[in-house]
Amino acid sequence: MDGDGASSTGATPSEEMNGTGNLMDFLDEPFPDVSTYEDFHTIDWLREKSRDTDRHRKITTKSKESYWELIKSLLDAWSGWVVMLLIGMLTGTLAGVIDLAVDWMTDLKEGVCLSAFYYSHEQCCWTSNETTFDDRDKCPQWQKWAELMTGHSEGAGAYVLNYFLYVLWALLFSFLAVSLVRVFAPYACGSGIPEIKTILSGFIIRGYLGKWTLLIKTVTLVLAVSSGLSLGKEGPLVHVACCCGNLFCSLFSKYSKNEGKRREVLSAAAAAGVSVAFGAPIGGVLFSLEEVSYYFPLKTLWRSFFAALVAAFTLRAINPFGNSRLVLFYVEYHTPWYMAELVPFILLGVFGGLWGTLFIRGNIAWCRRRKTTLLGKYPVLEVIVITGITAVLAFPNPYTRRSTSELISELFNDCGALESSQLCDYVNNPNMSRPVDDIPDRPAGPGVYSALWQLALALIFKIVITIFTFGMKIPSGLFIPSMAVGAIAGRIVGIAVEQMAYHHHDWIIFKNWCRPGADCVTPGLYAMVGAAACLGGVTRMTVSLVVIMFELTGGLEYIVPLMAAAVTSKWVADAFGKEGIYESHIQLNGYPYLDVRDEFTHRTLATDVMRPRRSEPPLAVLTQDSTTVEDVETLIKDTDYNGFPVVVSRESERLIGFVQRRELTVAIKTARQKQDGVVSSSVVYFTEDNPQVAEACDPQPLKLRRILNLSPFTVTDHTPMETVVDIFRKLGLRQCLVTRSGRLLGIITKKDVLRHMAQMMNQDPESIMFN
Amino acid sequence: MDGDGASSTGATPSEEMNGTGNLMDFLDEPFPDVSTYEDFHTIDWLREKSRDTDRHRKITTKSKESYWELIKSLLDAWSGWVVMLLIGMLTGTLAGVIDLAVDWMTDLKEGVCLSAFYYSHEQCCWTSNETTFDDRDKCPQWQKWAELMTGHSEGAGAYVLNYFLYVLWALLFSFLAVSLVRVFAPYACGSGIPEIKTILSGFIIRGYLGKWTLLIKTVTLVLAVSSGLSLGKEGPLVHVACCCGNLFCSLFSKYSKNEGKRREVLSAAAAAGVSVAFGAPIGGVLFSLEEVSYYFPLKTLWRSFFAALVAAFTLRAINPFGNSRLVLFYVEYHTPWYMAELVPFILLGVFGGLWGTLFIRGNIAWCRRRKTTLLGKYPVLEVIVITGITAVLAFPNPYTRRSTSELISELFNDCGALESSQLCDYVNNPNMSRPVDDIPDRPAGPGVYSALWQLALALIFKIVITIFTFGMKIPSGLFIPSMAVGAIAGRIVGIAVEQMAYHHHDWIIFKNWCRPGADCVTPGLYAMVGAAACLGGVTRMTVSLVVIMFELTGGLEYIVPLMAAAVTSKWVADAFGKEGIYESHIQLNGYPYLDVRDEFTHRTLATDVMRPRRSEPPLAVLTQDSTTVEDVETLIKDTDYNGFPVVVSRESERLIGFVQRRELTVAIKTARQKQDGVVSSSVVYFTEDNPQVAEACDPQPLKLRRILNLSPFTVTDHTPMETVVDIFRKLGLRQCLVTRSGRLLGIITKKDVLRHMAQMMNQDPESIMFN
Repeated sequence: MDGDGASSTGATPSEEMNGTGNLMDFLDEPFPDVSTYEDFHTIDWLREKSRDTDRHRKITTKSKESYWELIKSLLDAWSGWVVMLLIGMLTGTLAGVIDLAVDWMTDLKEGVCLSAFYYSHEQCCWTSNETTFDDRDKCPQWQKWAELMTGHSEGAGAYVLNYFLYVLWALLFSFLAVSLVRVFAPYACGSGIPEIKTILSGFIIRGYLGKWTLLIKTVTLVLAVSSGLSLGKEGPLVHVACCCGNLFCSLFSKYSKNEGKRREVLSAAAAAGVSVAFGAPIGGVLFSLEEVSYYFPLKTLWRSFFAALVAAFTLRAINPFGNSRLVLFYVEYHTPWYMAELVPFILLGVFGGLWGTLFIRGNIAWCRRRKTTLLGKYPVLEVIVITGITAVLAFPNPYTRRSTSELISELFNDCGALESSQLCDYVNNPNMSRPVDDIPDRPAGPGVYSALWQLALALIFKIVITIFTFGMKIPSGLFIPSMAVGAIAGRIVGIAVEQMAYHHHDWIIFKNWCRPGADCVTPGLYAMVGAAACLGGVTRMTVSLVVIMFELTGGLEYIVPLMAAAVTSKWVADAFGKEGIYESHIQLNGYPYLDVRDEFTHRTLATDVMRPRRSEPPLAVLTQDSTTVEDVETLIKDTDYNGFPVVVSRESERLIGFVQRRELTVAIKTARQKQDGVVSSSVVYFTEDNPQVAEACDPQPLKLRRILNLSPFTVTDHTPMETVVDIFRKLGLRQCLVTRSGRLLGIITKKDVLRHMAQMMNQDPESIMFN
Repeated sequence: MDGDGASSTGATPSEEMNGTGNLMDFLDEPFPDVSTYEDFHTIDWLREKSRDTDRHRKITTKSKESYWELIKSLLDAWSGWVVMLLIGMLTGTLAGVIDLAVDWMTDLKEGVCLSAFYYSHEQCCWTSNETTFDDRDKCPQWQKWAELMTGHSEGAGAYVLNYFLYVLWALLFSFLAVSLVRVFAPYACGSGIPEIKTILSGFIIRGYLGKWTLLIKTVTLVLAVSSGLSLGKEGPLVHVACCCGNLFCSLFSKYSKNEGKRREVLSAAAAAGVSVAFGAPIGGVLFSLEEVSYYFPLKTLWRSFFAALVAAFTLRAINPFGNSRLVLFYVEYHTPWYMAELVPFILLGVFGGLWGTLFIRGNIAWCRRRKTTLLGKYPVLEVIVITGITAVLAFPNPYTRRSTSELISELFNDCGALESSQLCDYVNNPNMSRPVDDIPDRPAGPGVYSALWQLALALIFKIVITIFTFGMKIPSGLFIPSMAVGAIAGRIVGIAVEQMAYHHHDWIIFKNWCRPGADCVTPGLYAMVGAAACLGGVTRMTVSLVVIMFELTGGLEYIVPLMAAAVTSKWVADAFGKEGIYESHIQLNGYPYLDVRDEFTHRTLATDVMRPRRSEPPLAVLTQDSTTVEDVETLIKDTDYNGFPVVVSRESERLIGFVQRRELTVAIKTARQKQDGVVSSSVVYFTEDNPQVAEACDPQPLKLRRILNLSPFTVTDHTPMETVVDIFRKLGLRQCLVTRSGRLLGIITKKDVLRHMAQMMNQDPESIMFN
């Protein structure tokens, strides 16, 4: 049985390190893949990378053997691009379908198209020839429910009936959504971004990106958004895109069998998700880089960009908005901004920061309450109640009755000459010729004033209800609600500044840049700046936020206002707490996420963090040539560690390697079944040569050098934790052994690091300086 | 003298690790900063990071003591933004000044403005009231040299005189440029990007980013570009921006005293440089991320973006192009592109890849020849000769006589109705009404055909001369020449496709999308795609290239053609050699640059790379308590290592730490001067307690634990080199110690890693698999 001793010495150590290679060779029956990880465990990035290199090396070697192998190797090299193409196409298609379905179902709450029930309000009136341009919204084919059922479109009765049916549809949609989530895919709830961040950082959550989740999330997302709840589809779209990514990974063993490579694909998928959410491919890539991803090599950057573009173009081919624009909120402004306007922009930034803080604190407090109290036991009831409240309060106000994206779109828009909205009800000067663009500032009419009141009410409503909505057991994104809050606030500020500038041309601040009769202030720009500020306050995005907004407007002109607001909002929000909403949810759920941005600046050392602590029993180790099979089995049974260090002897404690628990279990089980002479008292040895057997009657020893990782990661006990944290982050380690002058002292796992960081965060930095 | 033993034990080890803290305390006189590095050495990123954390911790602690300290800490926190603001402003200003000066001096080669000699041709004719719109280029104030000197503007004599003066000015400019570089700042030559990449990866090249380099590079860049040589100002602008960054670093000790932090600023400065070179801030940031930077944390991303924006807006305020556009080549196309056009776009990509390969091979071969033969001894002569050849050959062809940016600009432009250029000399259909935009395809006139010939000659000329120009001892960028080559090729292809589409409407490929009388083909777009392809082939930029081009056109519409060309060109070029021009120059110059993109896939182990090799003498180590001062001094004198491992004893070889050569030298020198009783036979010890002194008459031992790094980085001898390379890259190590079961075996430095990687690259992967 030791006949392969010589050849194993000759085998290259990297194979020995990975352990699976040769072990597989002498087994005939299918064998559980010892390289996979258990659910809710952390992956070892270095190991995944080295496995991929091995794979690659094998293929390269083989490719020289025959043309068929060469073609296979080329296919393998191209598979990354194929996956990206597929992800982009499916994500774009799903986003288009979701957009169309949401449009239709949102309008279904108010009425139905008689010419074809599957037309949304807008599509219904397009196909109608009887509408004039001014009256786009009204066409005979589109009937409100009251009109259809009673024949009356006006009057209190019709209003009440419409109201009732609006609420009813909303309740129906949300009930369906929450039931589907509960029954088929519990992971489909929420925005998914905190979990995706955690998964990308190297955590395993089985089924989170599965086919069921994809299907149910897509369907329930449509239902949830259509129900009129204060939530958006952007975050969930990232989750949907990642599910697509995971789906296509399973087509290629290169990705499905390597958790590290799979995460590269998922990073790109996240970029595609944001790309279709906003129609901003570059912003999507930067979002993935800045906000979501953990390991983002340059190759992934390039592929993400490709996936994001394919997704954006697929969406444009479907053309759900009917304007062949790529972006969700297309705007074009005709006037530049002035230096003095930076003051209100920065104020909007402050508002955004405060909103971010309020939202994060309120939402986290509510979610914690949901986790700990009876509330969490009745998710369906919670959703129904919140939907009921939302629908009842939303219907009377025209700005909340509509879908939130439509609201944002209207708030962003500049008032053109042909605009019929209430917000554009300005008093026109009859003497003035009316150019289509570039309309001068005018005094606000009664419509604007009533719109302001309604917007103010809508603002308060949105602020309160969003805090309770995000985190319920339905798909819910917070980009759109956050942007809505900011856009409302921004538009109100914008109109106020505009009216001030109109009525007080002579004030010093306006004198320099605002002649009477000029178009000085664009309230739509304020709405956009406010939206950026609020989104920034909640998510703490910076570059990606500005780039997304830049792609929406398409002009570098407005980057400075957006940046000023985004920076202010980030600073204000950071002053109250460093964590964005995603990090807060990660912490709330206790995921082992090592944030790249948290700087660890405490003076603790590896020795303060490593286990065992002084009071604990000594570290569970194996010796290289004196542990018996029984000892090992006892150790496996008594502990739940992921692996065990192997030392020369218990006295010298000199480290020689590390074995994974899974591999050890499998190896011993297999040896017991297959190898003659291996019994409980057999000695397990990890050296290259047989150990000195004392007596001839001793049982056959069991050689396990193959599963020994000969290059475990070590640091000395004096290493500052700052460096250790850096190493864990950058190399993606699972564990690290602690030594002092070559002796093994203890072990630090990723969870130990996270626990220590959380501990330090709650302590005063000074108090631990000399502990 | 050992009285501080207790307190030193109490000191936190991170201070001990850095070594400089306490050592400084007991020295009165100014003391050379032992933390700085020597020229042409590599920095230790981990150490720099930990020093910065210490600094930060001190400031945070102090800030609680008084309001003044709090303000100081706030100023310190803000200094990063201040530096970015200053860099952006200075870079933008310099770019504007360079643009204006180049414009003027380029025109000076042909003539002079009579109304004000410092006006360029364009400015001169702006101020003139006598020019009509059609005749923008001709105004009486602007006189060619022949006209001014002889009174005749036509005829052979005038032509020859103009020719002669054109060559003369060119020679004068380039002579001045090369002389200034030779005499004042030898580092000002070349593009600077290879060196900046190396510096950012952690190498020290003193003076490369100094004030003199900044000044001379700015001046000589203007001269070199004006001389009409086939070079651009984009690469050197990145160097100039980095010099600005370095300049402002020296204002803040936070950056000037920490080589790691300094490099963060330089990364941002590089982004600002590209931002002003093209007017593309987002592209600049991505360029810095993708192409130049090594360590690019998210904080730097955000700051780079800020610096790039400030720079772009400063440049716009200066408005050197007189069109208040931010971008260098502003274009607007009016027609979409069609699927079938992807074929010529991909062909342009292939051309770009081939050009990239040809250029890199040719240029590197020429530069190597310059390094090794007599050619390198006469840099001034070389520049003069190349300038002479360039000027003589360039003058007769109108497309090469002008500045290259003007040429590219014309090639990119779509032929509008008012265009008077030769390239737009199409035969007009007199029956057709002429809208300003969207002119239908027309048959080419004689002007277009002669333009095609001239462009073809210009293409050959540019291809050949650029290979010899890049790398001479003057500032020279290759963005513009590469783009020119691509733009010429692209325009030629574009006109060919256009004429084919016009004359063969009935061919299947044109039938579907090109009705007679429609505007199907935009030759300017082909020029742009060609430029992207050629630039991509030379530099292997991908995302940043597409984003820069996207910012130039401002429309997502054209991203797909650009991407198709960029990807094709990268693949084609990669097939002939993985390295871009910058990496090739880095390798040519032998800089220790560890490329992030090179994947190391060989099966070697740490033990194969570490020194000492089997045949070499054993590793130079210190023992913790048995080396004498004299031994140490001998060791320092006899070796030139950067540091020495410290072991328990030569027998056990158990590693306890690492001392830096510089710190050891300083500590011993100081002790000899200041400490009584320290003589040559004194024992140097690194333990916490005094060593056992054998006899009472022995001299006072010297305690050096303070300079001992107790957390040296170690790997086992079985660690695959793949992992070691990864660790060096990600953690930015200088060296790493190799152990086996706690015993010190050897050391791997960054240079060893690089040498090994180069070695492996030249070997067949199979042949070393079992070595």
